[in-house]
Amino acid sequence: MKAVLEKVDKNTITSFFKSLQDSITQDIENCDGKAVFKEELWYRNGGGGGRTRVMVDGNIIEKGGVNFSEVFGILPHAAAEALKVEKNQEFFASGVSVILHPISPMIPIIHMNVRYFELSNGAKWFGGGIDLTPVYINKDDAVYFHQSLKTVCDWHNPSYYPDFKKIADEYFYIKHRKETRGIGGVFFDKLKPSTELSIENLFAFVKDIGLTFSPIYLKLINNNKDLPYGEKQKQWQLIRRGRYVEFNLIYDRGTKFGLDTNGRIESIFMSLPPQVNWLYNFQTEDGSEEQLTQSMLKREIDWITFE
Amino acid sequence: MKAVLEKVDKNTITSFFKSLQDSITQDIENCDGKAVFKEELWYRNGGGGGRTRVMVDGNIIEKGGVNFSEVFGILPHAAAEALKVEKNQEFFASGVSVILHPISPMIPIIHMNVRYFELSNGAKWFGGGIDLTPVYINKDDAVYFHQSLKTVCDWHNPSYYPDFKKIADEYFYIKHRKETRGIGGVFFDKLKPSTELSIENLFAFVKDIGLTFSPIYLKLINNNKDLPYGEKQKQWQLIRRGRYVEFNLIYDRGTKFGLDTNGRIESIFMSLPPQVNWLYNFQTEDGSEEQLTQSMLKREIDWITFE
Repeated sequence: MKAVLEKVDKNTITSFFKSLQDSITQDIENCDGKAVFKEELWYRNGGGGGRTRVMVDGNIIEKGGVNFSEVFGILPHAAAEALKVEKNQEFFASGVSVILHPISPMIPIIHMNVRYFELSNGAKWFGGGIDLTPVYINKDDAVYFHQSLKTVCDWHNPSYYPDFKKIADEYFYIKHRKETRGIGGVFFDKLKPSTELSIENLFAFVKDIGLTFSPIYLKLINNNKDLPYGEKQKQWQLIRRGRYVEFNLIYDRGTKFGLDTNGRIESIFMSLPPQVNWLYNFQTEDGSEEQLTQSMLKREIDWITFE
Repeated sequence: MKAVLEKVDKNTITSFFKSLQDSITQDIENCDGKAVFKEELWYRNGGGGGRTRVMVDGNIIEKGGVNFSEVFGILPHAAAEALKVEKNQEFFASGVSVILHPISPMIPIIHMNVRYFELSNGAKWFGGGIDLTPVYINKDDAVYFHQSLKTVCDWHNPSYYPDFKKIADEYFYIKHRKETRGIGGVFFDKLKPSTELSIENLFAFVKDIGLTFSPIYLKLINNNKDLPYGEKQKQWQLIRRGRYVEFNLIYDRGTKFGLDTNGRIESIFMSLPPQVNWLYNFQTEDGSEEQLTQSMLKREIDWITFE
């Protein structure tokens, strides 16, 4: 359901992010039925900190994190450069990021992030997105995933889904492999208030993105958790996870930003899969399910009308 | 034994590199006793190509590559930028690179590279090095390794070992972990002929570095191959391999150069370990062997006099 507008500032936003972290950790724990999240608080030299919550060795989830952070102070130089903003000003940044690596290769890896940024020069913006990395692309699930995101986007602006889907396609592209990380989703950054769009409007959109995470992923888990799999499927998963690592370490701006600003390494690398393989020159077999998935790791597939 | 000087040009160098690849693959196959290298020839659009040789699932080696390449043509723009040389000229580059990931965590990972580069503006230089990444640092082995490199370096120039050891310490430093990849070794780049040092002198040094690889590594294998290990040691190896991946994907200039110039992906990523783990917030136990190794992953340790 579309969120109702309300007067917002960074405190409103931050408390929503905290409650979002709480509700997602609860939803995932309930669904997993075995593992619970372990929380660690951390503090940043210079201001702020966060709550890292990590789950390992569950019934469903092999490794997953649901992190909240809220950091502020003088903007580090590397951060000013990465953000292309003027140096020596104060900043405030808060966000929630989620990454879940399921045990079963039949359940997709998911990633979600919502964030808010404010500078002492008055600039403020939101960023975020949700994207899905199936080990085996199931077309019905892919359509459901994209349709769900489109529905939420359309509540706010009919151009959001097409625009942000395109950005996700470009962002999650592994250039050296000439393939996408998964089936994309939506991704947006520097979404700023304007005369037409108040911060309240933007926050309502970001809230809806955050709140849609659990229902979407729980459905994808339920659709696939009882599917059988064997060694071949597990091997393919470990290879696909290798691509995930390649993306995160070579291209991901969030990882780079974290490393450049001396972020907490274990929180940054929490996104890395628990177990990964690199096989030399692995090739999918002709006519196999793996080859079918590989053939769909392309940008600009219209998943909504996909047949 | 120190190599004898001879008149050299790029053909002499390239044929040495090819014979070095042959002798190393032979030495490793003999030592492994089970797996053999599989060779693949590849060709570069624009000129040249290489011989990739990969071994997997041996008695000793889990995954390893011994690669020769010889590429030439118009220098790609990204390469000119990376090398900080003028654009739109012809280049010639040849080299051998070796990376071996043993099965046993008691045997160190090793990496060696020797290379030669020539530009149509007349510039020419050598680069290369050998470095060792023990999962468990054995002090006697570490001293032996560094002493062997020092001996070879000292044949040619007493400043080579201290200078190139320092460069290796800096190069193989994983900044975000505040730790070195292993115990370093020697690393050099843009070693150019001058009035004092002919190309023959430099080639003689590079030859000796290449030729010292097999005896050093075979000894390290023999010292450690019969040591027992269990789950705990294997787990630590998979974690250390994760650091290896982090280094190669985030910092390694060779990897970046390969990706920027559209090199052959499977040859570039051949260096990645076959199986890797990322555990959230893994900490070594107080007083453990793992902690001891971790404590020695520092730059500027004088391994020759280490006690």
